[in-house]
Amino acid sequence: MNQLLLLAQIQELGLLRYTPAGLPALDIVLKHDSTVQEAGGPRKVSMELKTVAIGETAKRVQALGVGGHARFGGFLAAQRNGRGIIFHITELTAQEAATRAPESVSGLKS
Amino acid sequence: MNQLLLLAQIQELGLLRYTPAGLPALDIVLKHDSTVQEAGGPRKVSMELKTVAIGETAKRVQALGVGGHARFGGFLAAQRNGRGIIFHITELTAQEAATRAPESVSGLKS
Repeated sequence: MNQLLLLAQIQELGLLRYTPAGLPALDIVLKHDSTVQEAGGPRKVSMELKTVAIGETAKRVQALGVGGHARFGGFLAAQRNGRGIIFHITELTAQEAATRAPESVSGLKS
Repeated sequence: MNQLLLLAQIQELGLLRYTPAGLPALDIVLKHDSTVQEAGGPRKVSMELKTVAIGETAKRVQALGVGGHARFGGFLAAQRNGRGIIFHITELTAQEAATRAPESVSGLKS
């Protein structure tokens, strides 16, 4: 099991490229901000995450565009060049502004 | 939403330390190997992930020990020093060897 679910905004999009196998691929930077619970207390999280989408998912992310919000699902893997981690998107659900609002204040009002 | 579920082995454990707020904290390196599905085909994933556990979870990870396998749940955040990503464990379920076997061959036998 290796499953990440992340509500995030598309901060950067590369040009659509093709893998050696001929699949469309898109390099993305996602921006995530939320408040999570850890050890009984709230913790603010703000991060940028290197991300890639391959195949049909790449075209769906491209259609969403820079600034678009979505719930992204996928897995983590090692970066091919370097020591970091990269998020591979395999599914996404676009989010409207109205449905994002509760996420941004979760844990602060309770 | 910022939720990671990862079946992994504890590759490295630091000494139990305490946060400025007095909570126990443990620095961990997790090792994950699996085969996932991407763009209609199998992809082998092998990675090491910088991880931290704070509070009661830290003691549970310490009890599991180096080499222990578990299903870890938590969230991703930016590292305090540096540009990388760190996994914060907030829950874990220890795994027996017998229940791990199917994961290691998922997608290869079908």
